[in-house]
Amino acid sequence: MKNFSFYSPVKVILSDNFKDELEKILNKYKNIALICGKNAAYKTGFVDLLKDTVKESLFIFDEVEENPSINTVIKGGKFVRQNKCDLIVAFGGGSSLDAAKAISAFATNNKGFYELLSVNGLPNPTIPIVAIPTTCGTGSEVNHYAIITDYEKKDKINFAKEECFPKFAILNHEYLNFLNENTLYATIFDAFTHAFEGYLSKRANPFSDMVATQSIKIILENLEKEKLDDSSLKNFLYASTLAGIVILHTGTTLLHALGYYLTNHKSIHHGMANFILLPNYIEMLEHKNVDKYYALKKIFPNMVDILNKYRGMFKEKVDSILNEKELSEMCEYALNKKNAENTLFSMDKKELMSFFGF
Amino acid sequence: MKNFSFYSPVKVILSDNFKDELEKILNKYKNIALICGKNAAYKTGFVDLLKDTVKESLFIFDEVEENPSINTVIKGGKFVRQNKCDLIVAFGGGSSLDAAKAISAFATNNKGFYELLSVNGLPNPTIPIVAIPTTCGTGSEVNHYAIITDYEKKDKINFAKEECFPKFAILNHEYLNFLNENTLYATIFDAFTHAFEGYLSKRANPFSDMVATQSIKIILENLEKEKLDDSSLKNFLYASTLAGIVILHTGTTLLHALGYYLTNHKSIHHGMANFILLPNYIEMLEHKNVDKYYALKKIFPNMVDILNKYRGMFKEKVDSILNEKELSEMCEYALNKKNAENTLFSMDKKELMSFFGF
Repeated sequence: MKNFSFYSPVKVILSDNFKDELEKILNKYKNIALICGKNAAYKTGFVDLLKDTVKESLFIFDEVEENPSINTVIKGGKFVRQNKCDLIVAFGGGSSLDAAKAISAFATNNKGFYELLSVNGLPNPTIPIVAIPTTCGTGSEVNHYAIITDYEKKDKINFAKEECFPKFAILNHEYLNFLNENTLYATIFDAFTHAFEGYLSKRANPFSDMVATQSIKIILENLEKEKLDDSSLKNFLYASTLAGIVILHTGTTLLHALGYYLTNHKSIHHGMANFILLPNYIEMLEHKNVDKYYALKKIFPNMVDILNKYRGMFKEKVDSILNEKELSEMCEYALNKKNAENTLFSMDKKELMSFFGF
Repeated sequence: MKNFSFYSPVKVILSDNFKDELEKILNKYKNIALICGKNAAYKTGFVDLLKDTVKESLFIFDEVEENPSINTVIKGGKFVRQNKCDLIVAFGGGSSLDAAKAISAFATNNKGFYELLSVNGLPNPTIPIVAIPTTCGTGSEVNHYAIITDYEKKDKINFAKEECFPKFAILNHEYLNFLNENTLYATIFDAFTHAFEGYLSKRANPFSDMVATQSIKIILENLEKEKLDDSSLKNFLYASTLAGIVILHTGTTLLHALGYYLTNHKSIHHGMANFILLPNYIEMLEHKNVDKYYALKKIFPNMVDILNKYRGMFKEKVDSILNEKELSEMCEYALNKKNAENTLFSMDKKELMSFFGF
């Protein structure tokens, strides 16, 4: 056994009595800040439910955009501070949850973004967070990662502070019904790649492997079902949270790094981008004879077949989306990403391009 | 899927560079309190190592007895408070770790034992704890349970406060070498029963089941090995920690409740007591046709055979240890224990006694 460490500090609550569970937590706090975007929190009825549940004061900061900016988290921090909020309710997909984590830090630490980013250990304790994910993909509810975009530098920063783990995550599968089918599956495949890449990461450990195989098992079992019902949604949401625990330990790998390019340059949903690239990545794993990939195939012999059943949903192949110049850019970009360092094989740009037909 | 919640807040570190890992943590604190008993911390050389590692001040409270008393935790709390310690290093078996958790609460909350026990949410934040287990049995390093003995009332109290989870646990298998073989195996079987009973608890959930089966798998694989080497010790210690995470979610069941009686009245090691009673418990599970027991047997068909190889080590059977009156007392006692409520079958005293030949 190599040296490793593990934990999963967020208390995750799965319950059919969503409102009761939320109420139990809210009751201990006075001034509640809701951090969310302009859409999901309203159309799902969550804002109304929250108004109905909060005993004292509710303050809504609904300005989180997709790929939240530095400006948003600084503004959100000021909002929470000025309203003297003692609890943050983070509602939405990865963007809202990530923004809320950074906001919880800036609320009590009135500093510039890069100034606080560079500090080792935040000066003041953060505001506790209840995270409520509305997709089954990012796993953001169980880690401290907060991807914030610097639009000036055209760069994404991971504002990852140990103090920014949510205190609670409540999983309510009913919110998944508000996603269109393509987005739902894109997020499921995002979760799948978290578990898959986590298992195949250099940073994998016995604990993360246990969680990753469980997550993959649940996702495959539920993808195999004929019908998408309530129980599948519950299972996908649970598996996505498990996959979030995996990447807390392992990070992601080259596949995610490649996927970022497709998202940044072709506006393809992050989960769908990973799914489109997955067959190429599997070819690489096979070509490089990665032992752990074959170990995984042994546990899940039908894995690739089950995934392929969903190919029809995302028909595009990489070489029809990108021209040669873009493919070359993607490979260059991905190999320089930090995620690529976790990959169990190494490859230069020329070899990587060959897996896309060049 | 039923309603459930899960987490594992303690950061567990497994490393061959024990001293380095400890140093990294200690460096962030000034006044360190060591909470331990009179023996292990000295004979293992840990006290010397700690003196060598602590940069500023070290204060040693080595008065933790087996089955720590209320008096000890109040005294320890005062010791930590008066020496203005900002970190507690808890070193030893379950007794030292449990005592340290309660001490961390009394250090900052100067109140009577029952007064603080009855409070919902501690008034002041506790002192952070680094837990270093020296047995591979209790799993105390990863939960907030603190079993404290009230010697006046002849009662054991679980001083379980959410605020008393250790912040870190460092697993160093080398300390297991200081246990005699019988004690080592008794603690391994304690860990086994935590995972086994956890899997068969009414409070089991998909997360705890995942961790329990992994713990059982590791324990059985290593019990099957011909030789007890460094790698087995590492594995047993990891599996014991996993089993600690299991009972954090599930508690234990009737088996543990019965075992307490053997320990309290015949001074039989807690782990050994469980192991002695395990065949009777398995008979009950079979007799009651407990589905989940058969599911577990399906995963681990050799489980009982592997365990039976160690029967020679603990030859005694319950009916040679207890007379009929005592057996009757044990059954009465166990059925009234809270653990018994988690058991997947129900049984009255008469039926329970029949499994011990009466």
